[in-house]
Amino acid sequence: MPSLRLVAAQLDTVVGDLEGNVERIRAALARAEATGADLCVFPELAITGYPPEDLLNKPRFVADNLRALAEVAAATGRCAAVVGFVEQLGPAPPGLPAPLGNAAALCAGGRLVGTYRKRLLPNYGVFDERRWFVPGEKVGDLYLIAGVRVGISICEDLWFDDGPVADLGRAGAQLVVNINASPYSRGRRAERLAVLETRVAEAGCAIAYVNQVGGQDELVFDGASLVVSADGSLLAAGRQFHEDLIEIDLPLPERPHPGSAGAIITVSAERRRDPVRDAPAVPEPLSAAAEVYEALVLGTRDYLAKNGFTDVVIGLSGGIDSSLVAAVAVDALGATHVHGLSMPSRYSSEGSIADAATLAERLGIDLRVVPIERAHVALSDVLEPLVGGAPAGLTDENLQSRLRGVLLMAVSNDTGWIVLTTGNKSEMATGYSTLYGDSAGGFAVIKDVPKTLVYELCRYRNGRDGPGPGPIPEAVLDKAPSAELRLDQRDDQSLPPYDVLDPVLTAYVEEDRTPPEMIADGFDPAVVEQVVRLVDGAEYKRRQMPPGVRITMKAFGKDRRMPITNRYRSRREPSGAGGG
Amino acid sequence: MPSLRLVAAQLDTVVGDLEGNVERIRAALARAEATGADLCVFPELAITGYPPEDLLNKPRFVADNLRALAEVAAATGRCAAVVGFVEQLGPAPPGLPAPLGNAAALCAGGRLVGTYRKRLLPNYGVFDERRWFVPGEKVGDLYLIAGVRVGISICEDLWFDDGPVADLGRAGAQLVVNINASPYSRGRRAERLAVLETRVAEAGCAIAYVNQVGGQDELVFDGASLVVSADGSLLAAGRQFHEDLIEIDLPLPERPHPGSAGAIITVSAERRRDPVRDAPAVPEPLSAAAEVYEALVLGTRDYLAKNGFTDVVIGLSGGIDSSLVAAVAVDALGATHVHGLSMPSRYSSEGSIADAATLAERLGIDLRVVPIERAHVALSDVLEPLVGGAPAGLTDENLQSRLRGVLLMAVSNDTGWIVLTTGNKSEMATGYSTLYGDSAGGFAVIKDVPKTLVYELCRYRNGRDGPGPGPIPEAVLDKAPSAELRLDQRDDQSLPPYDVLDPVLTAYVEEDRTPPEMIADGFDPAVVEQVVRLVDGAEYKRRQMPPGVRITMKAFGKDRRMPITNRYRSRREPSGAGGG
Repeated sequence: MPSLRLVAAQLDTVVGDLEGNVERIRAALARAEATGADLCVFPELAITGYPPEDLLNKPRFVADNLRALAEVAAATGRCAAVVGFVEQLGPAPPGLPAPLGNAAALCAGGRLVGTYRKRLLPNYGVFDERRWFVPGEKVGDLYLIAGVRVGISICEDLWFDDGPVADLGRAGAQLVVNINASPYSRGRRAERLAVLETRVAEAGCAIAYVNQVGGQDELVFDGASLVVSADGSLLAAGRQFHEDLIEIDLPLPERPHPGSAGAIITVSAERRRDPVRDAPAVPEPLSAAAEVYEALVLGTRDYLAKNGFTDVVIGLSGGIDSSLVAAVAVDALGATHVHGLSMPSRYSSEGSIADAATLAERLGIDLRVVPIERAHVALSDVLEPLVGGAPAGLTDENLQSRLRGVLLMAVSNDTGWIVLTTGNKSEMATGYSTLYGDSAGGFAVIKDVPKTLVYELCRYRNGRDGPGPGPIPEAVLDKAPSAELRLDQRDDQSLPPYDVLDPVLTAYVEEDRTPPEMIADGFDPAVVEQVVRLVDGAEYKRRQMPPGVRITMKAFGKDRRMPITNRYRSRREPSGAGGG
Repeated sequence: MPSLRLVAAQLDTVVGDLEGNVERIRAALARAEATGADLCVFPELAITGYPPEDLLNKPRFVADNLRALAEVAAATGRCAAVVGFVEQLGPAPPGLPAPLGNAAALCAGGRLVGTYRKRLLPNYGVFDERRWFVPGEKVGDLYLIAGVRVGISICEDLWFDDGPVADLGRAGAQLVVNINASPYSRGRRAERLAVLETRVAEAGCAIAYVNQVGGQDELVFDGASLVVSADGSLLAAGRQFHEDLIEIDLPLPERPHPGSAGAIITVSAERRRDPVRDAPAVPEPLSAAAEVYEALVLGTRDYLAKNGFTDVVIGLSGGIDSSLVAAVAVDALGATHVHGLSMPSRYSSEGSIADAATLAERLGIDLRVVPIERAHVALSDVLEPLVGGAPAGLTDENLQSRLRGVLLMAVSNDTGWIVLTTGNKSEMATGYSTLYGDSAGGFAVIKDVPKTLVYELCRYRNGRDGPGPGPIPEAVLDKAPSAELRLDQRDDQSLPPYDVLDPVLTAYVEEDRTPPEMIADGFDPAVVEQVVRLVDGAEYKRRQMPPGVRITMKAFGKDRRMPITNRYRSRREPSGAGGG
């Protein structure tokens, strides 16, 4: 049976870091060469990092990327490399950018052997590839590597029936490598595996799906590369949320080459002599809660590390959201790099103050306590002539929240620590937060995590390391959610209970259902009316939120581009687009 | 000579307001019918407003838009209408959105006669049309209206040589209507006129370019519709930044119909009997400063009106930025709806305090003065244990700025007035602002106006209404720019002088030049290095800024999609992505 020694290099590249990415690629190449591999496969746009976005509008950036690719090509030896880069397809027409391709290079023996240009360009959800790239129009070439015919495809190319991968199968490929920058969303690994099973059946060849790993602004790439044989078996898999070099002696189908298909480019005809090694064990996929938790940890760690931060400061209220954020931060950075700030007000309960202290102690992080009463009184006094009496109601609630934001940001300015905000997706959706208050900070760790999932993740984290109490106090999980900005406040005075709210939000935000459809689906009309009004009215707030980790198929951000000014389903009151 | 009585309906539609947009269209149709017009032309996507963005992902929204179009069609009589709408091209495949077209309907006699689908879809700059639409593949049909052959094109279709308009010319069109949602940028009207002159020469027919007007989030549409004869003369033009119905008896070329071209759909064969009227006078184009100023006024007025706000509150420092914003706000809303807040600190100069008062008096707006000293001291005291002594340096500067942000937002919460922020583009670019401080608010009027242009606009506004002092005190124009957050502070201690800075920013931000190219162009290397570092390092701040009026070809926002995490041209220090 034909075979190939393959290395899937599941790397954590950095956008724009051309020198660094070349170094990362060269290190993996050296390792592949040393282990006698025939082919080493890198992720989509590994040279530039993904997504480089409007860096692609800089002609010099594209030229620098080509120089970086030449360095990678020069570093190849007997082991061939497939590496993603930006191809320039011609000169720039006057006043327009040059046409570019999202491409893969096949390099070997110190030189560039051939290229393939991505044919299907995603331009939905978080993807804007049509903004920068021209789609490829040709079926990819086949490369003869160690006697095996190998075809190349890129990410989206894999996802359509009778598409580019089927074309490569028809041309006689024994192996198709599919290079990816595929962001994580819940359950994504299983979806990819299902598509791969369909695709190998259709194409009649094995597929090596190689994904990047790491955080890039709101996106987190989960790695989880997958190698599937022509008969649909999962032969090897990369770790989830960690860099990995997956080395496998890959058995491939005997397939006649249809004489009618295109030319085959010979790269390395000789077969390797080494004995075939056992395939590495396929790692057990993470549980539903664990994969989200790990996504949050990696997304946070990479955002900070790639932007030069070592430490974070978090306002710890004793509530469940800030408790989860603190736990994630400790797992991302280590306890000594996480700093808690407790800022109790006249409305903070004894329980909450104690819970924050217990959490900090169990996590091993430092906690400073700064009551805000004096500053609250001073600000109220200054405001009195402006608002005609002591601030009350929403004005006073927001005042407390903003005062805390000011203190956290002052600590950040003084120390260089970044503020992690603690709002969850249910709050982001409904606008149940204070602009410049609890939403003030550099990274919003759980902004795409609905409140009901926040509970699940806390329970997961508490149980993760075996029996005994976890870091998050039981009282935090048990008490009724409250912002504690007025006496006896509870979230369910302003919002439906979260187990009612979250499914409505999923239907409206993630599934684009409209109120009449949701009511027809059986949701309570009054709840639907309230939730839709809140979500639409909070669009302006979401525009001013810090970035955070995307874990669903539709996060607030690039995924959901809603106008702020929007009268669809005529709302019955001012939208409050900027009110606070 | 053949002719046609045309009405170009330059309307201010509202995104998502299907019922309201139908009403606006019907009112213009009734007027056109009453004046004996043959054809009334509405802007691109007039039914939905432009851009509807991800509302298009809601199947129900598309269906509602089709019902709205049917209402418009039913309202037509003898006068034909061309109106932009969203066409559904087929059923939605499982799990995918239905294919849609950015389309124009030709309606007459109470029914839909035909449709045309936009062939060239912009997917750059602020445009994402490939995200939602499938491009048209066919040359548009010709319609025989009052004996004249009329072709339809949509916006981008106009901008390419030998494109859809040339195709219509070859097919024998005597008039091409081009419906638009073309956002304003500086000098855009002249660019459009130049393209129209090229296009009529190529196509051999007249072109009626009909644009929408009004603000939609960051975009402002300037109207300025243009009717150009086959010989290149500008026959009629719509007002800039105002709704307009341009009525003209349009002379058209005698052209034989090439028998080989497609079918012609007869709409209204009879010619009108009315005597030909004189064309309306072409309004004089606004000056370079006036068009920017009017863009700011309309963008601000529409954002507020369309989101239900009547009043604004502005922090008046006595500086030039807040002075300009106040003047724009008064022109947008009227003086009684604009409220000034002066919040002097220990560092505010007497001159600045007096200048704010003079400005308010001349504009006729109310001004409340609230010294922040006591609150500043109280907050400093609370912070002392956290930052190891009295806050100093940047921490203290930001503290004052954030304190003012808290006061403004409290007034906003108490009154429902929206806070207008006062940062200019030079500050947005370099991050010379305080997150949650001076950048806190609902709408950032001058965020796309470079500082040097701020001066120009103030001089324009002061001179606009004839001799005598304008609203902005001369002292404001004369003094050195300063944030007044520490003793004897001046902007040029932190930034290059603005007349040096602004050209560097234009090259880097708007022209996508890289540092080596800019240095080769003759910019001072040290300045380039400093400015690039500041711009890259402030990306995270810009993500949290409120929307504001776009007046250049590259505003911060949808125009410039830069990653926050970005190591291109390896910066030498942490990027501060979230630091404050």
